[in-house]
Amino acid sequence: MPGQWHHHAIRVRYQETDQMRVVYHANYLNWFEIGRTELIREMGFPYTAIEQAGLMLPVIHAELDYRKPARYDDIISIYTRIEACTRVRLEMAYQVHRREETDLYTIPPFAETDGREPAGELLVSGLTKHVWVNKEFKTTRLDHALPELHKLIDSYN
Amino acid sequence: MPGQWHHHAIRVRYQETDQMRVVYHANYLNWFEIGRTELIREMGFPYTAIEQAGLMLPVIHAELDYRKPARYDDIISIYTRIEACTRVRLEMAYQVHRREETDLYTIPPFAETDGREPAGELLVSGLTKHVWVNKEFKTTRLDHALPELHKLIDSYN
Amino acid sequence: MPGQWHHHAIRVRYQETDQMRVVYHANYLNWFEIGRTELIREMGFPYTAIEQAGLMLPVIHAELDYRKPARYDDIISIYTRIEACTRVRLEMAYQVHRREETDLYTIPPFAETDGREPAGELLVSGLTKHVWVNKEFKTTRLDHALPELHKLIDSYN
Amino acid sequence: MPGQWHHHAIRVRYQETDQMRVVYHANYLNWFEIGRTELIREMGFPYTAIEQAGLMLPVIHAELDYRKPARYDDIISIYTRIEACTRVRLEMAYQVHRREETDLYTIPPFAETDGREPAGELLVSGLTKHVWVNKEFKTTRLDHALPELHKLIDSYN
Repeated sequence: MPGQWHHHAIRVRYQETDQMRVVYHANYLNWFEIGRTELIREMGFPYTAIEQAGLMLPVIHAELDYRKPARYDDIISIYTRIEACTRVRLEMAYQVHRREETDLYTIPPFAETDGREPAGELLVSGLTKHVWVNKEFKTTRLDHALPELHKLIDSYN
Repeated sequence: MPGQWHHHAIRVRYQETDQMRVVYHANYLNWFEIGRTELIREMGFPYTAIEQAGLMLPVIHAELDYRKPARYDDIISIYTRIEACTRVRLEMAYQVHRREETDLYTIPPFAETDGREPAGELLVSGLTKHVWVNKEFKTTRLDHALPELHKLIDSYN
Repeated sequence: MPGQWHHHAIRVRYQETDQMRVVYHANYLNWFEIGRTELIREMGFPYTAIEQAGLMLPVIHAELDYRKPARYDDIISIYTRIEACTRVRLEMAYQVHRREETDLYTIPPFAETDGREPAGELLVSGLTKHVWVNKEFKTTRLDHALPELHKLIDSYN
Repeated sequence: MPGQWHHHAIRVRYQETDQMRVVYHANYLNWFEIGRTELIREMGFPYTAIEQAGLMLPVIHAELDYRKPARYDDIISIYTRIEACTRVRLEMAYQVHRREETDLYTIPPFAETDGREPAGELLVSGLTKHVWVNKEFKTTRLDHALPELHKLIDSYN
């Protein structure tokens, strides 16, 4: 639903840890990617459909604030929200929280944060900025290339 | 040398690419880590020695600006510079450039950018902020825990 | 249940692809790890509990047969089975299958393959061999260190 | 040179470690890939040239034997040798050794093992089997598609 945090839960993989015994810091960018992919899927557009339409959404800017480390086997909530969109750009915000073991498959994607902040223990927050490009990495207007998706994103913002 | 960009060259690995046929965006954080590790090694302190002294240097903030994508097999220059340091914090800046095939093993770590900007085609720039912590992730004063390293970093800044 | 394939489903991440537009081949070892972790969890022993007991289970041998590539966003079934166990060693077999979009959260961990081969399109099969070690990487008898887990694994074999 | 071990040295990255404080076991497949890429480059064929000719060399089988763990910041020698080749298939063998700090940039790619086994402390050995395919993943005869490369590989075997 527009303006709301979208929720997706994952479990931390062993491969994501490093010898500090915490999740290696670059993995949060992977998790942000999972969050925005699942948000767009929930809106009705799997990212594969976007690439089949000849569009890609590379990251042009990213920021991350690390408060507490995630650890192996933790249940992690990735919250994602559309912050801004134009016809060629998209900005997303993220919050990564630690959750209870029982939360993994039980939280609906949108209902939870209706007017409230995401639940759980905040570990990392961040944002990414993107530009819509075609297969030659040229900036492309989303309202021309995929008007249905542009309308959807605009309504969620 | 103080205030200068430190240089370290790598070659892009196949595993670092994704199906956009470019380097996956999270890998630049790995490359930043390689850059700062090699800078500290050049100063005389391999990061292993720091961890053996009971200190760690986790990332608390990161920012990345993506201008052009790196591609498989490219020769990449990672430039790293100390931007700021206090007794408990450290801030580093990074520039990632594409270089010629012949540049891989021939560029000295410091001499190149004496008073000049780094060479090559700028792909990604960024910064990271860090805090010195002990093994329990408690903030630790570097001038107490490793005074020799604190003096060195201070002189490079 | 003893002798049966344990099932766990995941979705392929963008980060797991490479520029051949398929999943990079090393990632199947990560997926095997997820499979055996979830099997052991299903048996009542999260791997974190094993490490807290001072035990680790490093891989000493791995084999993989690649038949067809997994692709971005595919739903993947990881099937895992205990092939052999002694007091110090463990051998696991794996099959990775492509599934339908609707299979992600709907397949129970054990009931499915009662006396049958795993379902879906076989992509990769493999095996791993492990040895139980303590924190100094010395071989350790599981029946001494964690007798309850040894009995469980023995009964599943 | 034919039948000889090709040598390429790397340094272990922090991102490659896991919370066992050793290199995560899947990374050796990445290192094998680096080894065979550098061997083929040394023969005069960067892998990019092979992909530009419309050929790819996916892995169809892999085996790894883990003897001792590599650790963060270690200097690692990747030794690679062509074991067998036909017009459509290729088999490579690998040995991963730990070396001295001074070995990183000083070992020539072929001269070292003339009639001898690779130097250093053996950590992991393995092999990979490959098939030459075109962009649609159809098996392709190398002697037809890139006869010059086929002749070269045949002479190294």
